[in-house]
Amino acid sequence: AATQVAVAQDISKLPRVKQKLVAPPNVPAHDQVAKGGPKIVEIHMEFEEKLIEVAPGAKAWGMTFNGSIPGPLIIVHEGDYVELTLSNPKSSTLAHNVDFHAATGALGGAGLTLVQPGEEVVLRWKAVKPGVFVYHCAPGGTMIPFHVISGMNGAIMVLPRDGLKDAKGKPYTYDKAFYIGEQDFYLPKDDKGNFKTYGSPAEGMADMLEVSKGLIPTHVVFNGAVGAITGDNALKAKVGEKVLFIHSQANRASYPHLIGGHADLYWVGGSFSDTPLTSQETWFVPAGSAVAAAYEFHQPGLYVYLSHNLIEAVLLGAALHMNVEGKWNDDLMTQIKAPASFDAKAAMDH
Amino acid sequence: AATQVAVAQDISKLPRVKQKLVAPPNVPAHDQVAKGGPKIVEIHMEFEEKLIEVAPGAKAWGMTFNGSIPGPLIIVHEGDYVELTLSNPKSSTLAHNVDFHAATGALGGAGLTLVQPGEEVVLRWKAVKPGVFVYHCAPGGTMIPFHVISGMNGAIMVLPRDGLKDAKGKPYTYDKAFYIGEQDFYLPKDDKGNFKTYGSPAEGMADMLEVSKGLIPTHVVFNGAVGAITGDNALKAKVGEKVLFIHSQANRASYPHLIGGHADLYWVGGSFSDTPLTSQETWFVPAGSAVAAAYEFHQPGLYVYLSHNLIEAVLLGAALHMNVEGKWNDDLMTQIKAPASFDAKAAMDH
Amino acid sequence: AATQVAVAQDISKLPRVKQKLVAPPNVPAHDQVAKGGPKIVEIHMEFEEKLIEVAPGAKAWGMTFNGSIPGPLIIVHEGDYVELTLSNPKSSTLAHNVDFHAATGALGGAGLTLVQPGEEVVLRWKAVKPGVFVYHCAPGGTMIPFHVISGMNGAIMVLPRDGLKDAKGKPYTYDKAFYIGEQDFYLPKDDKGNFKTYGSPAEGMADMLEVSKGLIPTHVVFNGAVGAITGDNALKAKVGEKVLFIHSQANRASYPHLIGGHADLYWVGGSFSDTPLTSQETWFVPAGSAVAAAYEFHQPGLYVYLSHNLIEAVLLGAALHMNVEGKWNDDLMTQIKAPASFDAKAAMDH
Ligand SMILES: [Cu+2]
Ligand SMILES: [Cu+2]
Ligand SMILES: [Cu+2]
Ligand SMILES: [Cu+2]
Ligand SMILES: [Cu+2]
Ligand SMILES: [Cu+2]
Ligand SMILES: [Mg+2]
Ligand SMILES: [Mg+2]
Ligand SMILES: [Mg+2]
Ligand SMILES: [Mg+2]
Ligand SMILES: [Mg+2]
Ligand SMILES: [Mg+2]
Ligand SMILES: [Mg+2]
Ligand SMILES: [Mg+2]
Ligand SMILES: [Mg+2]
Repeated sequence: AATQVAVAQDISKLPRVKQKLVAPPNVPAHDQVAKGGPKIVEIHMEFEEKLIEVAPGAKAWGMTFNGSIPGPLIIVHEGDYVELTLSNPKSSTLAHNVDFHAATGALGGAGLTLVQPGEEVVLRWKAVKPGVFVYHCAPGGTMIPFHVISGMNGAIMVLPRDGLKDAKGKPYTYDKAFYIGEQDFYLPKDDKGNFKTYGSPAEGMADMLEVSKGLIPTHVVFNGAVGAITGDNALKAKVGEKVLFIHSQANRASYPHLIGGHADLYWVGGSFSDTPLTSQETWFVPAGSAVAAAYEFHQPGLYVYLSHNLIEAVLLGAALHMNVEGKWNDDLMTQIKAPASFDAKAAMDH
Repeated sequence: AATQVAVAQDISKLPRVKQKLVAPPNVPAHDQVAKGGPKIVEIHMEFEEKLIEVAPGAKAWGMTFNGSIPGPLIIVHEGDYVELTLSNPKSSTLAHNVDFHAATGALGGAGLTLVQPGEEVVLRWKAVKPGVFVYHCAPGGTMIPFHVISGMNGAIMVLPRDGLKDAKGKPYTYDKAFYIGEQDFYLPKDDKGNFKTYGSPAEGMADMLEVSKGLIPTHVVFNGAVGAITGDNALKAKVGEKVLFIHSQANRASYPHLIGGHADLYWVGGSFSDTPLTSQETWFVPAGSAVAAAYEFHQPGLYVYLSHNLIEAVLLGAALHMNVEGKWNDDLMTQIKAPASFDAKAAMDH
Repeated sequence: AATQVAVAQDISKLPRVKQKLVAPPNVPAHDQVAKGGPKIVEIHMEFEEKLIEVAPGAKAWGMTFNGSIPGPLIIVHEGDYVELTLSNPKSSTLAHNVDFHAATGALGGAGLTLVQPGEEVVLRWKAVKPGVFVYHCAPGGTMIPFHVISGMNGAIMVLPRDGLKDAKGKPYTYDKAFYIGEQDFYLPKDDKGNFKTYGSPAEGMADMLEVSKGLIPTHVVFNGAVGAITGDNALKAKVGEKVLFIHSQANRASYPHLIGGHADLYWVGGSFSDTPLTSQETWFVPAGSAVAAAYEFHQPGLYVYLSHNLIEAVLLGAALHMNVEGKWNDDLMTQIKAPASFDAKAAMDH
């Protein structure tokens, strides 16, 4: 295609659009089918280091893209150019950069974007692979796992220009999309078993890396904290709506599952150039990747979306809530007889 | 299809069949290709809490569907209705319910089936997704992992009405099927390193959940105990038979492998609406899911079916035996020269 | 096909070729498309037990096929016969054998190949499944995980006779291939936290198995040692070259990722009879399997290939380096503005 052979001097003629990033689980406004040809999509992200509360009594120095864990979802189309301005404010204590799994060369951009506190860099790269992909900070050596397990990761969705296709190859359109970023934390404890707090990210680094070497997180959460997406923050949808879930885990395997629902479609590894799988109860996220799954809701009520290691979901925090409005469908499920005491002898005759 | 638009009042006219459930690794009698249209398949399951021996010296309170770990495999066809009577005997100490990953809405049925000791409930739901799916108890909060890691999980197989298809899309018929339910246990130890016993499930709950938070099981077993499917209980098949293996793991990833064999066909996530993969040495089971794999045996002898983390298989218990009768095929494998002492110098000339 | 029905007496007429095995990450010289019909491919492997240094200060008794961890990659075509001479030198302290995941029957050959120190055995088996598959030592019982986590594993590639196909079903030819064998080690420590050394493999067995029961490795490495494939040993390629990566992990899940690159093609489970997936950021290796992925390099520079649990990659050792020569492509990526101090106020107007 024409976009494949575009050379550098042509880029100056491409239209430019600014993408306004929003905090997850929301996603930026976007067209599912691209209007017109390739564009330069301008985005701006700013690093922010800040004390967060992962769970009551469990504080940590979060390192973030734009202040959220995960960082915002970016959305472009295949063949578009991402032009990223990356700012590290003076208030930061560490240098940061970004490695886009969707990009080609220079360690995904990490080799060209390391910015010290008070510095800014601009990187342009072309999105040639359709799918959903992780991005994360990768400043080198032990700083890499340290920054990633402190929250510095997000995802980009590179849509095919003509949109998604279902398992039969027919165009697939979703009604809404959510971005779920899963984060594993490895928070050090003191002698009494209480989580420790530190005066700066660097101060806690050695302790945190020591805990992390055991490979067992103290917390696994969506949106930066246990229960972040529940109550008033619960996801919302309606019966009949098709919802696209983008799920990233930059460091560990995850097993997304929607209690009471399914993945009608699941793009393995998040690749939109492959035929999606169907009818999945759990859709796997290999460590260091983002995937996509779509479901049309058929029943109203509360749904719980979790990683289906139920210990991680319930005891470590990897669960969120979703409220779906609409009319109950008795054909799909009915309580024929409510719980009531029974005659054990009669039951044995069944 | 007609089954998709069936409304509630039509259901009363559907034929009813009772399915007699059997203990795993056996599976209930069933047709691979459905005879006639959709049916209401009546099943009855009863909860049973009982002291089990996971390994010599390692007792635990098992919580079960129908007394077995895993619970029995249910088999229906796509478009059938499952009508489940679920009984919690007076002898139980806890409330239980069931969440079917194959069902739609109400937390997979969990929201409509919580029964206290002495109570019974009847739930009907429609099987709209073809594949193999986990079911498990999910009474809410920390009770969810507690019941699941105590054994309360099983699987249902929803066959396409016209049966399975191979990787070329041609009808595929198996000669026999086995259901392998893998269970991770997290049994607490006392100060001397011996496994503790408790007077009731509730008594051991806090300790067990504390162990489970470390995410490393003390045991990983098939059919509820180390070595449960060996010796007289080993699986049996004949050369030339095609065997379908249904493998579930409700809480953790698993890596089934058949030593000396393969998965000729492997349905990812257990989805029968997708083209199966072929020639798999290990077929992955994402946490919280059931998958299916089929193999035609070509050689007689002992096979070991295990989860191919060999530490888990050999040291934690995730292995079973299978004896296959028939005629050895020298073309596939021959011992050309039996082990014998050799001349090291000559060998170096090879 | 004719090769499928070949009977034992025909084999004597087949051409014989000797395959010269080489140390990983290199692969033996081979044709991608087979020349002529099925062959008998003669290989010789010798066990070697030797003290290795997994990381500075971390010595272990490596048990190996041909002296390397992993053992050498074997390459044949579907329908070929592998005729393996397996020698256990007198200097060995233990009996060893080999289980080929690609073989059919007799526990993958393990049941026919157990050789005591000073013995040799010859096994012939037919490669009927195309793909990449693990082989490993499996002497029975607790010796199985002990030998495998001591390094006794490798892989075989069984190419389709007409070579590989891409995602569109078109012939796919690679320019070079590398074999990456990932090894998890579970090295015991003394009271001071230093890694222990032992006088023989058997002497350290109980300690190592005890560590391994915790399922958390002390090291995860490529080619037997932390940093083995860096510096002068880094992989090399050129822009425009298509590189096939074969990645095996005989005991644990792995998450290969190429920083700055992708898997253009990824054969799930390593099966060459299935359509490969495309555009994968991470390509999953289920425990106990080998997979294959191919990438055409588009940018020069340093690439890091790792398992994308970044803790495992950076702190436990699962990373290697690759140097790619060629011309930088500004269209794919350009640093528009080098890092420089910025005006925070202006940035907020973006
Ligand atoms: Cu950073
Ligand atoms: Cu990365
Ligand atoms: Cu229960
Ligand atoms: Cu579940
Ligand atoms: Cu060995
Ligand atoms: Cu094996
Ligand atoms: Mg992805
Ligand atoms: Mg649906
Ligand atoms: Mg009954
Ligand atoms: Mg399933
Ligand atoms: Mg076969
Ligand atoms: Mg030799
Ligand atoms: Mg393989
Ligand atoms: Mg490419
Ligand atoms: Mg801005």
